[in-house]
Amino acid sequence: MIKTLLLSACLLLQTAAIGAQPLPSWNDGDAKQSIISFVERVTKEGTPDFVPPAERIATFDNDGTLWAEQPAYFQLIYAIDRVKALAPEHPEWKTTEPFASVLKGDMKAVAASGHERLAELMAVSHAGMTIDEFSEQVSDWLATAKHPKTGRAYNEMIYQPMLEVLEYLRENGFKTFIVSGGGIEFMRVFAEETYGIPPEQVVGSSLKMKLEERDGVPVLVKLAEIDLIDDKEGKPVGIQSHIGRRPIASFGNSDGDLQMLQWAAAGKEHPSFCLLVHHTDAEREWAYDRDSHIGQLDKAWDEANERGWTVVDMAKDWKTIFP
Amino acid sequence: MIKTLLLSACLLLQTAAIGAQPLPSWNDGDAKQSIISFVERVTKEGTPDFVPPAERIATFDNDGTLWAEQPAYFQLIYAIDRVKALAPEHPEWKTTEPFASVLKGDMKAVAASGHERLAELMAVSHAGMTIDEFSEQVSDWLATAKHPKTGRAYNEMIYQPMLEVLEYLRENGFKTFIVSGGGIEFMRVFAEETYGIPPEQVVGSSLKMKLEERDGVPVLVKLAEIDLIDDKEGKPVGIQSHIGRRPIASFGNSDGDLQMLQWAAAGKEHPSFCLLVHHTDAEREWAYDRDSHIGQLDKAWDEANERGWTVVDMAKDWKTIFP
Repeated sequence: MIKTLLLSACLLLQTAAIGAQPLPSWNDGDAKQSIISFVERVTKEGTPDFVPPAERIATFDNDGTLWAEQPAYFQLIYAIDRVKALAPEHPEWKTTEPFASVLKGDMKAVAASGHERLAELMAVSHAGMTIDEFSEQVSDWLATAKHPKTGRAYNEMIYQPMLEVLEYLRENGFKTFIVSGGGIEFMRVFAEETYGIPPEQVVGSSLKMKLEERDGVPVLVKLAEIDLIDDKEGKPVGIQSHIGRRPIASFGNSDGDLQMLQWAAAGKEHPSFCLLVHHTDAEREWAYDRDSHIGQLDKAWDEANERGWTVVDMAKDWKTIFP
Repeated sequence: MIKTLLLSACLLLQTAAIGAQPLPSWNDGDAKQSIISFVERVTKEGTPDFVPPAERIATFDNDGTLWAEQPAYFQLIYAIDRVKALAPEHPEWKTTEPFASVLKGDMKAVAASGHERLAELMAVSHAGMTIDEFSEQVSDWLATAKHPKTGRAYNEMIYQPMLEVLEYLRENGFKTFIVSGGGIEFMRVFAEETYGIPPEQVVGSSLKMKLEERDGVPVLVKLAEIDLIDDKEGKPVGIQSHIGRRPIASFGNSDGDLQMLQWAAAGKEHPSFCLLVHHTDAEREWAYDRDSHIGQLDKAWDEANERGWTVVDMAKDWKTIFP
């Protein structure tokens, strides 16, 4: 009997914690209300739309959804910074593309150098080292590199309103996953501290790995060979491979997220929720959509409007952008 | 103040739950004691060996570690049963190997038919359908197929003492993962109900997948192309890919698990625990080790003895085998 009473008290305490006003950095409006309505709908026990906690899977894109992606994907900036750091050991890079353009700071030439050469750029910065070495390099970079416009560390260029969505979902028994075109090992370096998302809940693009022995110790070496491009039609593949269960809520910002949102929406057993962040705030962040090279939002926007998915207007819906 | 009191009460209740005698199906002895000592050592706050809950990762092989693997891997038996079920639609199989031997029940000929033909056997039973279709087929099979020796359903051929280890670790803040050579989607069908391990904590061998549209709905189709063989040196790769964190405890039974155990043991930040199940009980289960074609335990056994890893003697250490 005492045990029952105490257990009830524990439940009450938990409920009280959840009862705090959710999403404080969101202005009142349709977007905020749609999130709250969905969460209340799927967590009300005894109703037909109730979803058991184990099936409350939510997936989030990273670039442009949880953190910024302008003036270039932060991971590309990392690759460039890494090439600059390694240049003294590679005098030949002064005359070899795409390295020469990187070292001259001619980003247009880098971008125009074609897929194969961009792959070389990614290879020297992301492959040929152990997982531990790579993680340490990324960690060092995050601790020192600053965003060119805001002067913030890159992992401070995150969206406060989305941090609150992550937290709100977790308080309501959801398991939150990143499902991003970004590199899985790159994101794992900061995802736990920055978003409260542990490494085993990070899904991303990946290189193949190989087990080797160095100094009598097993190490995993990153190879310059693509394992998965976790973007567009790769996102449902990454979700199935890592999660093995269809998300009931999915959050993105670009056409690269469309297949992930469609995948969540195609679930038949439970209600689903899909949301797109629309970058409309040139003053506090950036404004871009249909014609952007980075984070193009075109087809996914049309589909969101047709299907009644939530489209967040950053300028209007968010009180603050960065924490 | 009331809140503090209630929270203390909650903690007490949890402690009481944990305080129940762990591992009741284990005989008192070194094996049982080694598990308990390790768990107590890494969960004692304020000591140098304390491991934060987020890093308490434990990985378990499946075949021969959590469930039986004789007289053949259960997934191979599934493939064979599936070929038999599909045979009426494939009259040509009567004269094509390895199908002809399967249909005749000549398992020696099947085994001798070589890798490529065994791959064909796996392909017809595991590829060319959607993930949902495959899961349904496995689920139907589990509900009806019976083990030839015990007459039990295959997912009742699980080890009660290992279920208790899973439970004991989870009660102590561990996250338990399967890391097995078995198929990831095959195991996900029963892992949650049978072991309390959700799909996102199942790592296994996998086929590539492709997103397609069927009747206007996106589906994931299993291709007849290997993605990962999650065995031997593939196990640390599977662990890094899916978990992104090194396990501090790892459980296996054969040479196929050696690299996984070495990977756990190579962690420098925390103490680690490695355990091998040695099949020594011909009466209640099976007895096999160095010369077995299935679940060969040879090199891993030697290394376990050298390094002081726990080796479970099933006949001696386990009061019961199956639940």
